[in-house]
Amino acid sequence: MDKLMLYLSILVSLVAFAFAAWLFLWVKRQPSENKLIAKNGELIRQGARTFLRKEYTVLARFALVAAVLILILLPSPIWKGNIFDNILMAVAYLMGTAFSAIAGKIGIEVATIANVKAAEAAKSGIKPSFMTGFRGGAVMGMAVVGSSLLGVAIVYLLTGDATTILGFSFGASSLAMFAKAGGGIFTKTADISADLVGKVELGIPEDDPRNPAVIADNVGDNVGDVAGMGADLFDSNVASMAAALVLAGSIDSAVGGVLNVSMVFCFAALGLLASVIGVLTARIGKKGNPTRALNSSTYVTTGVYIALTAAATAILKFEWRIWLACVVGLLVGVVIGITTDYFTDDSKKPVRMVAKASGTGPAFTILSGISYGLLSVFPAMIGIGVSALAAYKLCESINPAYTFEYSMFGISMAAVGMLSIVGMIVSNDAYGPIVDNARGLAEMGNLGEDVIAIADELDSAGNTVKAVTKGFAISAAGLTVISLLGAFMSEVNTAAAELGVEGIKNFDIMNPVVFFGLLIGAAIPAVFSAMLMLGVDRNAQRMVEEIHRQFREIVGLKEGKEGVEPEYDKCIMIATTGAMKELIPAGLMAIVSTLVVGFIGGVQAIGGYLCGNIITGLLLALFMSNSGGLWDNSKKYIEAGNEGGKGSPAHKAAVVGDTVGDPFKDTAGPSINTQITVVSLVASLMSTLFLTLSIF
Amino acid sequence: MDKLMLYLSILVSLVAFAFAAWLFLWVKRQPSENKLIAKNGELIRQGARTFLRKEYTVLARFALVAAVLILILLPSPIWKGNIFDNILMAVAYLMGTAFSAIAGKIGIEVATIANVKAAEAAKSGIKPSFMTGFRGGAVMGMAVVGSSLLGVAIVYLLTGDATTILGFSFGASSLAMFAKAGGGIFTKTADISADLVGKVELGIPEDDPRNPAVIADNVGDNVGDVAGMGADLFDSNVASMAAALVLAGSIDSAVGGVLNVSMVFCFAALGLLASVIGVLTARIGKKGNPTRALNSSTYVTTGVYIALTAAATAILKFEWRIWLACVVGLLVGVVIGITTDYFTDDSKKPVRMVAKASGTGPAFTILSGISYGLLSVFPAMIGIGVSALAAYKLCESINPAYTFEYSMFGISMAAVGMLSIVGMIVSNDAYGPIVDNARGLAEMGNLGEDVIAIADELDSAGNTVKAVTKGFAISAAGLTVISLLGAFMSEVNTAAAELGVEGIKNFDIMNPVVFFGLLIGAAIPAVFSAMLMLGVDRNAQRMVEEIHRQFREIVGLKEGKEGVEPEYDKCIMIATTGAMKELIPAGLMAIVSTLVVGFIGGVQAIGGYLCGNIITGLLLALFMSNSGGLWDNSKKYIEAGNEGGKGSPAHKAAVVGDTVGDPFKDTAGPSINTQITVVSLVASLMSTLFLTLSIF
Repeated sequence: MDKLMLYLSILVSLVAFAFAAWLFLWVKRQPSENKLIAKNGELIRQGARTFLRKEYTVLARFALVAAVLILILLPSPIWKGNIFDNILMAVAYLMGTAFSAIAGKIGIEVATIANVKAAEAAKSGIKPSFMTGFRGGAVMGMAVVGSSLLGVAIVYLLTGDATTILGFSFGASSLAMFAKAGGGIFTKTADISADLVGKVELGIPEDDPRNPAVIADNVGDNVGDVAGMGADLFDSNVASMAAALVLAGSIDSAVGGVLNVSMVFCFAALGLLASVIGVLTARIGKKGNPTRALNSSTYVTTGVYIALTAAATAILKFEWRIWLACVVGLLVGVVIGITTDYFTDDSKKPVRMVAKASGTGPAFTILSGISYGLLSVFPAMIGIGVSALAAYKLCESINPAYTFEYSMFGISMAAVGMLSIVGMIVSNDAYGPIVDNARGLAEMGNLGEDVIAIADELDSAGNTVKAVTKGFAISAAGLTVISLLGAFMSEVNTAAAELGVEGIKNFDIMNPVVFFGLLIGAAIPAVFSAMLMLGVDRNAQRMVEEIHRQFREIVGLKEGKEGVEPEYDKCIMIATTGAMKELIPAGLMAIVSTLVVGFIGGVQAIGGYLCGNIITGLLLALFMSNSGGLWDNSKKYIEAGNEGGKGSPAHKAAVVGDTVGDPFKDTAGPSINTQITVVSLVASLMSTLFLTLSIF
Repeated sequence: MDKLMLYLSILVSLVAFAFAAWLFLWVKRQPSENKLIAKNGELIRQGARTFLRKEYTVLARFALVAAVLILILLPSPIWKGNIFDNILMAVAYLMGTAFSAIAGKIGIEVATIANVKAAEAAKSGIKPSFMTGFRGGAVMGMAVVGSSLLGVAIVYLLTGDATTILGFSFGASSLAMFAKAGGGIFTKTADISADLVGKVELGIPEDDPRNPAVIADNVGDNVGDVAGMGADLFDSNVASMAAALVLAGSIDSAVGGVLNVSMVFCFAALGLLASVIGVLTARIGKKGNPTRALNSSTYVTTGVYIALTAAATAILKFEWRIWLACVVGLLVGVVIGITTDYFTDDSKKPVRMVAKASGTGPAFTILSGISYGLLSVFPAMIGIGVSALAAYKLCESINPAYTFEYSMFGISMAAVGMLSIVGMIVSNDAYGPIVDNARGLAEMGNLGEDVIAIADELDSAGNTVKAVTKGFAISAAGLTVISLLGAFMSEVNTAAAELGVEGIKNFDIMNPVVFFGLLIGAAIPAVFSAMLMLGVDRNAQRMVEEIHRQFREIVGLKEGKEGVEPEYDKCIMIATTGAMKELIPAGLMAIVSTLVVGFIGGVQAIGGYLCGNIITGLLLALFMSNSGGLWDNSKKYIEAGNEGGKGSPAHKAAVVGDTVGDPFKDTAGPSINTQITVVSLVASLMSTLFLTLSIF
């Protein structure tokens, strides 16, 4: 059955591409007349292309070096193993980077058209503008799920081997680290510098075209939130499938048959179809609520997915307990999204309390925001813990001879379930920067206050949904890396069997080698996120200097003289080059630490290391993302006229909170995901080497 | 031998008390003439007594409830076990609270005399003022080590049972949680409110006697840093001995003899003697450097301890490998202290970079401070990991039949080694608030600028040393709780053997019950610290209201009319009552979560829970303490005339950083220690119940 299922998966992923193409053409057909908007839209488009080109160039160099190392060393050193396996692994790795890069490129291309169209459409009302933004975002959603399923299916079809898919997954996660962390540094460099010089020093509005950083700021939304978030979820989606396939493969080869591998592909394909249906049902009335429209299509996707997988389970005689684990994962994901919403929604206590505390000064904005951010990790950590425990217990009893294998497979399927609606999540997520851009373009194009108000409403819905999807993405990554830990153990034991050495039965906390790994692994996300934030800081300083230079040297710019324009491209180049420069040490630190721990403490230390990494990584990522979202919305709540409104001392304090929150929520927090996945995959791929060459 | 060693330990602890009495009388003999200083000193003294009385009253109620529960349930339920054991356990628990409370009371009494004397002595120069402050602090140091060793020795002498010492340790840690977290809330409530109304709103100096919160602020230094920190280190010290005794006892009873138990007492007693010698050698020249004087006496203590324990090992034929583990722990503790210093010293890069970033606004003060704080956890986590690993590996080979027992004992002795110089550490630590108070009293007593400058120099040395000792205290607690984890396992297996059920061999990360515990345990320190910080926030709001009321209602207060005085005691009462009110929910949250996890997931889940708790607890405690110290010193660095100096925008931004840092470093960060220890001890004590009554 699995060949058939593979062909079906490829077919379904092609459906996704076809649907994406249809959506893309629909967006492109929308009218655009305003020349100013078109001109600025083109600047954003070119800026985003500049960033992507640079990013992909740096990545290509990195990927080539990595591919050569893989060719020599993985899955086993070239002088010991089969060279053909190594070639396959290197090719799979490069495919992983390429597939993700293509999805990112598609997303950026459509987002930088959809923003212009959505700005224009806002003239005709909220409905057409929403539909343009949403369908533009959905192109990215479909490209991400389509290309991830397609890539995994092709690699599996060619090799029939799950380990090679770990190579594909590693490619995807290398790209994700560049796209998410690099994009995150870019976007916040531009955002902070633009605000610092524009709003604070000169007192000009947010999207004023005189500001040399304004285009970079709009480019940043696209590269950070469209390409970055897309690559991040591509990565998680692939990793969850890879982990599930490794575990399913080991069960299938033990019990005979291909049932479990087929189940993974079947459920992933059905998730894609459910997302297509969800996107199609997204509707908004003439005076409709955009947040509700986005959420209801998420719920539709969830419901459809549960129904479709139940039908598949009944027809194809999959194991119901595994189906249940998958559903548990999905439902817990939704619940975590809702609790995240509590901490970032401006009608709830936390946002209001932070806004109130801002009246006493910025120190209290920060203290209360940090406190609520720390509190917000509790429900998500409980949710992840409960879903892992429930999935394990559900599947433990499936086959008494393979309790461990089935229960780990159950956890990996909970992760697959949580990520099943990823097409919908990415669609919602990419909607945000499109309408955010549209708002900026409407202002730059002088479309008037009514139109800007519509764009504002759409933008605000994007922010609300973004906070929720971010919590979702982090939790899904958390569950995925737990199953990657299982995959790591399975890889180690496969390698041990081949080498004829003793495998591992557990990672015992009381083993000091494991504990040593735990402590080091736990420190990595803290160090990684600190390096990224310091990178944003340094990069913003460079950019502020450049903005100052332009205002000083370009005659007539400050006064807004007709025909005088800032050199937007210089700011874009600074943000781009700086982002790459600041990202690489952080990424290398994480990878090198993994190698050092692995060669000192061996696989046992790595087991602890991964566990420590997951745990504090989840904690910090949730804390930072939620605090950041909370500060952002507190500022907006005050700007809406509460606690003294715009210009009040409370507002000034809230702006400080928002500035701190920016790199928290858009650079460091969500990048931790990609760091964890990269490290987990490095560990899995290096398992043979760690097993044979470590000191302890 | 162990009886003899117990009597010797009791004797040595009496030496500590005698030495403390001598130091106390020396301090008391110093001259004091200035009436204004005496009057304000008396107000501080009474305020500190008010707080302690209230704290001990609340604690007494809590302790009685806990003692009754212990009587009924521990070590095994009264209807199953021997009632006499339960009575002993309850008594040990109450003794633990009482011994720590007495040490705290002694410390407060002498600190509130020494502050007055040190202020007066500053008139005669830096040397007499330093000696007064230092010897005042040393009284607390000696009281803490003396009473902890005395208590443990008495309980062991009476019962001969290490499990009962866990009860004593639990008593000490309940008190520590009240003293450290309650004192932390008190001190920051007073500090923040005094600054907010005094410095920010009215623009009056820091220690202006018109400010109704000024006495509360000075009281806060004493209750937070003298009583709180003392109770915290009392707790860690007792817990490290308790864990070592549990493990030593299980080895001794297996191999026959009392060698290892004797070693624990011997090494603890020698640590006390080394601290006495270190205190005696503390000297400063007429124009000497107080920081150097404090550090050099720490190094003397370290050297003396290593020499004394080596001699004892040779003479009493202890195992050299265990001695080495102990020395490794001590040296790693010193190294961690030095790296902490790097992140908080104003001649090093981090403080300077944060000061520089402050020029761009408070958001950058916060971002860079958080980033360096996150980086600072790396060396400490590596240090703890390496010392645990080294101790384990050193002791693993002592007896092939008991590799696990000896290696865990090695780790516990590394913790004992790290804490061996605790007498010196507490002395240095208590020195800080005494000279801080002296500075305030010198200002309130109009002693003139030269005297205040001397007091300032002494105060600044106190701050530097405080940052280092805090890093030390957290790391020592970290190593201690790792050995408590070993003690927990040993307790579980003892209980299992008695019940005739299967014991546990490991806590496997891949067991989802363990992983579930890990995730929940990891979230607890985040939630606990958030609750404390929100508590400070709420409490400060109440106090600001009261200060406003007094300035409004007391005629002539604002103008500083002769004879008009604020109602200092009202502010003290608000801070006291609020601190207790805000602390209890946070403490209960931690304890109740432990019980819930234990009764759901049993001992396996608790193993994971403790591990998660230790790891994120260490991470957050180090991060918060170091960021806080860094912000404090950046502000001082700017105030010394750098980056624009006092009153510049950079200074204003640095003040925001300092205000955020205050509850970080003095409330939440160091309280996490006590939370971890309380939770670890609850878990160990409840092991029988978790083993028999859990769901999974």
